Amino acid sequence: MSHVDKALGFVRPAVRKMDGYVPGLQPKPGQHLVKLNTNENPFPPSPRVLAALRDATEGTMRLYPSPAADALRERAAALYGIGPSQVLCGNGSDEILSMLMRTFVNERDAIAYFSPSYSLYPVLASLANARTAAIPLPRPDKDADMAGLAVPSPKARIFFLSSPNSPYGVGFPTAWVARLLERFSGIVVADEAYVDFAAESSLPLLAGSPRLIVVRTLSKAYSLAGMRVGFAFAHDAIIREMMKTKDSYNVSGLAQVAACAALDDQGYFRKTRDAILDTRTRFTASLVERGFRVLPSRANFIFAVPPAGIEAGRLYEGLLGRGFLVRHWKTGPVSDGLRISIGADSDMDALLGAIGEECHGSQ
Amino acid sequence: MSHVDKALGFVRPAVRKMDGYVPGLQPKPGQHLVKLNTNENPFPPSPRVLAALRDATEGTMRLYPSPAADALRERAAALYGIGPSQVLCGNGSDEILSMLMRTFVNERDAIAYFSPSYSLYPVLASLANARTAAIPLPRPDKDADMAGLAVPSPKARIFFLSSPNSPYGVGFPTAWVARLLERFSGIVVADEAYVDFAAESSLPLLAGSPRLIVVRTLSKAYSLAGMRVGFAFAHDAIIREMMKTKDSYNVSGLAQVAACAALDDQGYFRKTRDAILDTRTRFTASLVERGFRVLPSRANFIFAVPPAGIEAGRLYEGLLGRGFLVRHWKTGPVSDGLRISIGADSDMDALLGAIGEECHGSQ
Repeated sequence: MSHVDKALGFVRPAVRKMDGYVPGLQPKPGQHLVKLNTNENPFPPSPRVLAALRDATEGTMRLYPSPAADALRERAAALYGIGPSQVLCGNGSDEILSMLMRTFVNERDAIAYFSPSYSLYPVLASLANARTAAIPLPRPDKDADMAGLAVPSPKARIFFLSSPNSPYGVGFPTAWVARLLERFSGIVVADEAYVDFAAESSLPLLAGSPRLIVVRTLSKAYSLAGMRVGFAFAHDAIIREMMKTKDSYNVSGLAQVAACAALDDQGYFRKTRDAILDTRTRFTASLVERGFRVLPSRANFIFAVPPAGIEAGRLYEGLLGRGFLVRHWKTGPVSDGLRISIGADSDMDALLGAIGEECHGSQ
Repeated sequence: MSHVDKALGFVRPAVRKMDGYVPGLQPKPGQHLVKLNTNENPFPPSPRVLAALRDATEGTMRLYPSPAADALRERAAALYGIGPSQVLCGNGSDEILSMLMRTFVNERDAIAYFSPSYSLYPVLASLANARTAAIPLPRPDKDADMAGLAVPSPKARIFFLSSPNSPYGVGFPTAWVARLLERFSGIVVADEAYVDFAAESSLPLLAGSPRLIVVRTLSKAYSLAGMRVGFAFAHDAIIREMMKTKDSYNVSGLAQVAACAALDDQGYFRKTRDAILDTRTRFTASLVERGFRVLPSRANFIFAVPPAGIEAGRLYEGLLGRGFLVRHWKTGPVSDGLRISIGADSDMDALLGAIGEECHGSQ
C-alpha cells in the first residue's frame, strides 16, 4: 500500500464515498458573464454598509471578533421582534445548516426534505452519515403558494423546508408550516433564504413552537453574499445548544459591521427589493409571451420551462455561449427548465434578446 | 413533558452533555483594557491590506466569493513552495481543525494531544462523540525546543500537535515531528498557529509524508484575527477529501482580498515579527529580574510563574483591576502561571509597572 493510500485510509468512509456539494459555476478570472445562476442581488449593498466598512477601525481586523456577534444579535432581534438569546449568527446560512446537523443528527438518523429543493441537504446528510427521506414536491401550478399541499409526516430528525422553495420559487404559507409542526414530530427548519421576497414567513410561529428553527441569510435581499452572514432564530434553549457546535469566532469582524449596517437600512432594503419584484413581474410576462411556462415565484428567481421543441440543456449552453450564466440541472425532475436569477433591468432585457435569438435559431 | 423539553430531546446526547469552548474573555463595550489574553498582534495589518480592502469592488460584497479561494490558494502555495491543490483555506484555523474532525474522526474514534495544549481539542472531540488521549507534556526547562522529549505513540486517529505549544510556548523541532510520524501511525496535525515566531516548521516534511497536515493562521503574525483566515497544507489527495467537508463559501470575499495582500507584504511581516521578538526578549528579562520563572518561548506570548508567595490567580485578578487582561486557567497543570501575549512596547512597560505594584503589595 502506498503512503498516500495509507493516509487516505484514515478518511471516514462517509466522506470517501461522497461527492461534495457543487456550487453554482463561477466566471473564470477575466471572463465576462452576466451571472444569473446563484440568485445574487444586482444592487450593491446599502451605502451605509460601505460607510461602516470605511469607518471600521484596524481593531476590527487585528482583534478577534465578538464570538457570538453580540451587537448583530441585538440588531437582528430588535428588527424581528424576538430576544437576542433567540438569535445565532453564522458564516452564511450554509454554516447554520451545518450546525443544525451537528446539533440534532446522529449517525444513521434521517433528515427529510422536499425534492426538488436545496441540493446541499443530501450532501450534509452524507457527511453526517445520516439517511435521507426525499419527499417528491409536485410541480406547482398557478398559485405561488403551496397552501393545498398534503402535509407530510416522514420519520426523520429534521425536516428541512426550503421556503420559498428553490428552484421552483413557491412559498409555504405560515398556516401550512403550522400544520407541518402538528403532523411532523421532529425539528422543523424553515430555510427562509428567499423569504424577504415572499409574502409570508414562519417567524410568527416561533413563540409557540420550540421545535421550529427559522434560518435566514443576508446573501440575497441584503446584497451581502460575499460577506457570509446568516441567522438561526429559535427558542433560546435551542440556540444555546446550537452555540456549542459553532467555531468560536465564526463571523468575521467586518461581516458583523456590514451586517449591522445593512439591517439598519430598511428603507434601502425595501426599495431594492421592490425593484427586483417589479423586474420579476416584467421578465416573467416577457417569457410567457415567448411561449415559456414560468412557475409563479415568491423569490428573486424564476423557474422557466422553454416552449415545446426547445430543450432546456441546449438553451442553457446557447445562453452561456452568448455570455449569460443561468442554472440548469442535467438530471432529475427539474432538468426540463432553467432557474434564472432576477438581475438588473438592463441585464434581463439583454437576456430576453439572447433568448429570442436562441429560440428563433432552434425552431 | 413541556414543549421545550420535547424540542431539547432532539439534541444529540453528545452535544447536550458538553459545555462548549470558552473563548478568552473580551472587554465589554466601552471597557478599556490592555488585551494580552488571546495572542493578538499589536501591529495593524500591512498597509497593503488596508489599501486592498479600500479598493475592493462592491462585487466582493454582493457576489459569492470564490468557493475554494483560488487566488489565495495560489498565493499561499507560491509563498510556501507547494502546489495550489495542496492548500485548503478556512474561516480561521479553527474551522480547519473542525474540518479535520469531520474528515477523519468517526464516532468513538480517539484523538490524541498533549496536555496542556489548545483547549479546543477536547471540545472538538466531545462534539464528534470521540474519545481523547491526553498525553501529559512535562513542563519545559531551559530549552525552547522539546528536542529530547520521548516520542509518544498513542492509539488514535489524529495527533493534534500544537507547535509551538500553547500555553508553554515551546517548539517541536522538525526532526522530532519526523520521529512522531514514524512512531505514530495515524494522521499528524502540526497546528502551527504560532510558527511564524518560531525557528522551525514541519512544512519540509510534507513532501514525504501524506499523513502530515500542517495548519496555519493569519490571526497572529499577520494581524488578521478579525478577518478569519486559516490554512491546511497537505498532500493534494488529502486536501481533496477535506474540501468535501467544508461549507461551500467558507472564506468571505473581503477575507480573501485581505489575506492575499497580507501574504504579499513579507517585508512588513518580517519587520513586525522581529519587533515582537525583540519585545519578547526584553519583557522576559524584566520578569526574570522581578523573580518570575519564564518559560523559553517560540511564540508571541510567554508563560510566567510568579515568584514564591504570589499566587497566579490573585495576580491575574489584580492586573485585571488595573486594566490588564492576561490569561489564567483556574484549574489543571498550568494554574500556577499566567500566559501573557506580547503586545506593544508601551503596553508591556505599563504591564511591568502594574506587576511591580501588585507584587510589592502582596509581599
